[in-house]
Amino acid sequence: MHAIGIDIGGTKIAGALVSDDGSVLAEHRMPTPAGDPKAIVDAVVDLVDRLSGRGTVSAVGVAAAGFIDAEQSTVFYAPNINWRNEPFRALLSERIDLPITVDNDANAAGWAEFRFGAGRGVNDMTMLTIGTGVGGAIVSQGRLFRGGFGTGAELGHLRVVPGGLNCGCGARGCIEQYGSGRALLRMAGAIGDAGGIGRGLAERRAVRGELAGEDLAELIASRDAGALQALRELGGWLGEACASLGVVLDPQVFVFGGGVAAAGDLLLDPVREAYLSHLPARGFRPEAEFRTAELVNNAGVVGAADLARLHERQR
Amino acid sequence: MHAIGIDIGGTKIAGALVSDDGSVLAEHRMPTPAGDPKAIVDAVVDLVDRLSGRGTVSAVGVAAAGFIDAEQSTVFYAPNINWRNEPFRALLSERIDLPITVDNDANAAGWAEFRFGAGRGVNDMTMLTIGTGVGGAIVSQGRLFRGGFGTGAELGHLRVVPGGLNCGCGARGCIEQYGSGRALLRMAGAIGDAGGIGRGLAERRAVRGELAGEDLAELIASRDAGALQALRELGGWLGEACASLGVVLDPQVFVFGGGVAAAGDLLLDPVREAYLSHLPARGFRPEAEFRTAELVNNAGVVGAADLARLHERQR
Repeated sequence: MHAIGIDIGGTKIAGALVSDDGSVLAEHRMPTPAGDPKAIVDAVVDLVDRLSGRGTVSAVGVAAAGFIDAEQSTVFYAPNINWRNEPFRALLSERIDLPITVDNDANAAGWAEFRFGAGRGVNDMTMLTIGTGVGGAIVSQGRLFRGGFGTGAELGHLRVVPGGLNCGCGARGCIEQYGSGRALLRMAGAIGDAGGIGRGLAERRAVRGELAGEDLAELIASRDAGALQALRELGGWLGEACASLGVVLDPQVFVFGGGVAAAGDLLLDPVREAYLSHLPARGFRPEAEFRTAELVNNAGVVGAADLARLHERQR
Repeated sequence: MHAIGIDIGGTKIAGALVSDDGSVLAEHRMPTPAGDPKAIVDAVVDLVDRLSGRGTVSAVGVAAAGFIDAEQSTVFYAPNINWRNEPFRALLSERIDLPITVDNDANAAGWAEFRFGAGRGVNDMTMLTIGTGVGGAIVSQGRLFRGGFGTGAELGHLRVVPGGLNCGCGARGCIEQYGSGRALLRMAGAIGDAGGIGRGLAERRAVRGELAGEDLAELIASRDAGALQALRELGGWLGEACASLGVVLDPQVFVFGGGVAAAGDLLLDPVREAYLSHLPARGFRPEAEFRTAELVNNAGVVGAADLARLHERQR
């Protein structure tokens, strides 16, 4: 049976009608209403209305950045939409006559990759989503790992440097400060400042005022030496984080998603190298594979829909 | 039905007949034969023979330090007994007419705490065993977390300091080098060298030649200022590691076992304090509890027996 997946982002809300096999049958998007939970609920209800006319729907899965409780009903905290302790599922259930589950957006994306993308065929997968920040998802023995309170797999906040850079989470030295799209821009800026191989970066910045993600993507595509160096630096940190995550989680596969992962092996090669250099007991244990995500645009809605269907089936 | 648990340590092999409720009905110990796998197999067979006369036995669980594969049959690597890629279950099955499973010793101890000790009543638990080294175990949604290859939950090798102290695993900066019994002795030695509050430590060392675990335990029991300072330093590192483990695993409870955890709150207080100081998004998420292990002497054999029984029931 079909299910509806909704992904609430900082700027837009995406919704899709998704079939059993992960195909998107219909989709809609709208801007995220600023501010109050009521307007977000209205928007989700509207999307579900539009999509549910297209076929029989068994469940609705809603994904948002932030901490969702283990019952998948309350949003402890959602930075994009400034919610705290919002009984989101209850608010939606008053107006939508379908079973509803709420999930973290990185968890939903990771689940989609596990079921229909780069993680197909394995039991244990760890995903890092390298966008503006760093999101995480863990699949263990074929099940999504949510943690005891529902707030696990926040892999962007694994500490890689004691007393390191300040992070938005209040702690210091989180991998998000060394392995995210924002960190890549910072590294590229510093390489630009230093001249030499950074000349391409400095020139681009002079034209645009400030480096943006698109600039880096273009420079990486044209194999600019400075941009590739920034990507190697980023990949090195991510690989070191994977070595630590590997001893804890021991996934068969690490999947890299998000905008920065579009660089493919230009990112994964340095990740792999740093992972192997820092892996404890190397040579005495199996090693993980590294892959890039496949469901680049739809992972959030596809995963949210599939998790909702699965939850409904297990009731 | 009863099950037999066997725990192969570096110096001794312990065996016990364990009932459904985790009670030890009979036990035996013998020295670990040095060297060849054959002698270890003989010893395990001998223990099983002695114990299986005492009642109907459904399964045998064997625990050992090291990496066990996900099928719980092959020992990838066991440092204490110098094995590599040993088909241990097959060797035992030739001579023991009962279902056999092999598990990592820290996993077995963690499982025992989850079922019958400090982790009773929670779904998600993380255990750190602070002995000579640092062992780890993870229980997620009521199940032992082994990882994709069976080599997960090696929490002692989470990196806490990039480029830090060399570790026996070949990597650097592992929490084992900052949070183990061996690290505690090193910290106590340095505090002794510095004089002042370290005078008690220096005096003890002058008498004994070198500080040993028992010295530290006695000095901690008598509230020696230098020994307590060493314990606080150790606890601080462990708490920082728990903050990182918390964002990944999100356990409801951290359980501390092993000899050093006998210090109780003298260890857990600084652990808790450092955990809270370094926890990402503190105040926006539930916080874990910290407890000391309850099954101090028998955890390995009790957990190995219970895991074997569970495995048999699920076949």
